[in-house]
Amino acid sequence: MLKVPNHQVAGHQAGDGKLGPLVDDSGHFCKPLQSDDRGSKEVFFYTSFSSNTNIPNHIRRFFPTFHGTQLIEASNGSGKQPHLVLQDIFCGRLNPSIMDIKIGSRTWDPEASEDYIQKCFMKDTKRSSLALGFRIDGLQIYESEGSGFWKPDRQLIHEFTAEDVRLVLRKFVSSNSSAGVDPDCTFASTVYGGSGGILAQLLELKEWFEHQTIFHFYSCSVLMVCEKKSVVKEMSSGAEVKLVDFAHVVEGKGIIDHNFLGGLCSLIKFISEILTCSDVHTAKASLQDPRRNYIYTNCDTDN
Amino acid sequence: MLKVPNHQVAGHQAGDGKLGPLVDDSGHFCKPLQSDDRGSKEVFFYTSFSSNTNIPNHIRRFFPTFHGTQLIEASNGSGKQPHLVLQDIFCGRLNPSIMDIKIGSRTWDPEASEDYIQKCFMKDTKRSSLALGFRIDGLQIYESEGSGFWKPDRQLIHEFTAEDVRLVLRKFVSSNSSAGVDPDCTFASTVYGGSGGILAQLLELKEWFEHQTIFHFYSCSVLMVCEKKSVVKEMSSGAEVKLVDFAHVVEGKGIIDHNFLGGLCSLIKFISEILTCSDVHTAKASLQDPRRNYIYTNCDTDN
Repeated sequence: MLKVPNHQVAGHQAGDGKLGPLVDDSGHFCKPLQSDDRGSKEVFFYTSFSSNTNIPNHIRRFFPTFHGTQLIEASNGSGKQPHLVLQDIFCGRLNPSIMDIKIGSRTWDPEASEDYIQKCFMKDTKRSSLALGFRIDGLQIYESEGSGFWKPDRQLIHEFTAEDVRLVLRKFVSSNSSAGVDPDCTFASTVYGGSGGILAQLLELKEWFEHQTIFHFYSCSVLMVCEKKSVVKEMSSGAEVKLVDFAHVVEGKGIIDHNFLGGLCSLIKFISEILTCSDVHTAKASLQDPRRNYIYTNCDTDN
Repeated sequence: MLKVPNHQVAGHQAGDGKLGPLVDDSGHFCKPLQSDDRGSKEVFFYTSFSSNTNIPNHIRRFFPTFHGTQLIEASNGSGKQPHLVLQDIFCGRLNPSIMDIKIGSRTWDPEASEDYIQKCFMKDTKRSSLALGFRIDGLQIYESEGSGFWKPDRQLIHEFTAEDVRLVLRKFVSSNSSAGVDPDCTFASTVYGGSGGILAQLLELKEWFEHQTIFHFYSCSVLMVCEKKSVVKEMSSGAEVKLVDFAHVVEGKGIIDHNFLGGLCSLIKFISEILTCSDVHTAKASLQDPRRNYIYTNCDTDN
């Protein structure tokens, strides 16, 4: 009944005798507890978050539902191992385009060991975290029935520059996401924009992060999901934001999570620019030639 | 005509044959150019900022006016040296209470040398920058005509914990700021609150930092100024916010300054809490006993 998830874009993956998460048919995502203190920290987070009455419901929906822990036959054949039982956020999705974005210019908490800080510090500097306040950690973008998903390998993702990140965030909402083409951002207004779109959801999260001092979310990811095929069929875009990976969450101790908030605001700015740009483009295109809707027009939105 | 400023709370200070800034009677603050590249970087910033037409006027007012550079007799007797000629922001002030708050959990820019990064990193960790996203770098708080200002020495300030920072931000708006007393926050609503208060000004800055991608302000300070004596006399509180120290400003390259923004939001949260707390206190006090207006009531405003 348990199987390797169809849609996983980052983190340890099951299969080939390796330990990784498994999903069942009833919408559960079973994540093996990491053996060092990361496992226990994530359990502690979910337990504490679930029972905390200060979390507003409109914020709770951004987190996977927690169904406790359970001993489950591990994917690497090592027998029954403790797993977190969580909501499978891709359950029922057909062709989800997914971006896994690790938020924060720092992925380590100030109380971590010196060795760990040094390791993360190097990684944050080498990748885009330090510069952008976030980094893309994994992605899959639906292209078409024929070609399926674009899912670049880890090495390529690790080398993303600021410009690559900008491009990929545009591809995420484009009908022509294949390499070598200027993404048209056709779906920007339906996926990123609108009252139920990704930008609105990120802004809701941001508002909470401006005030909440309960948790600091180091090395936590924002997952952005959408269904481009549904947009074409004029159904809902399925635009959804979820937070995942809480193995490095620590207590906020009365201080806001300025590291997460800063990175989140940076991501919001990237997405806002794509929306502004695609508006300008649509207006320009329709003025000039209604058939040229898909040509990308570069626009300067700086301030 | 040039003299040592009366109201300087941080940075190199003139006097005793040392090099430091000087002020004149016509409202100029002359800051010697630091001899390494920090001097030229600050000139570059002021020049570039002054001529940049993308800076809105309501934001420009948060920066000291720049009057160019000039060769001026240096305070250490080394003869004529190049100085930045800036607006003296304390000109005309009688008894300004001042907080110099260095914003950002990082005070180094990602392109600095490894040695410099290491030096700043240690300092940011030891002081409150890493934890709070900002640190108090200097302060003077007006107490009374008799006792003058409370101006703790640098060593004490360097050891400020999160709780010390909270206390000092309360003292800044209290009529009883002497040590050992619970600050009453009498002036919170007039200095921090209101449409012209410090919180409103910080929020205006915040809004700009959510969008501006022109500069990244590493190691830059927010100065908060007020005149408590004026509040007592029912005159204006003189609440003012200014940004100073731009020797480590770098180009934003299309990315928001998430480091500054995160720290600014953290400071805003601290100040909002004092305001909320003082409202609760005032309400409670007036319900219980109108004469006990000055007793501090601790309040839990978390979320």
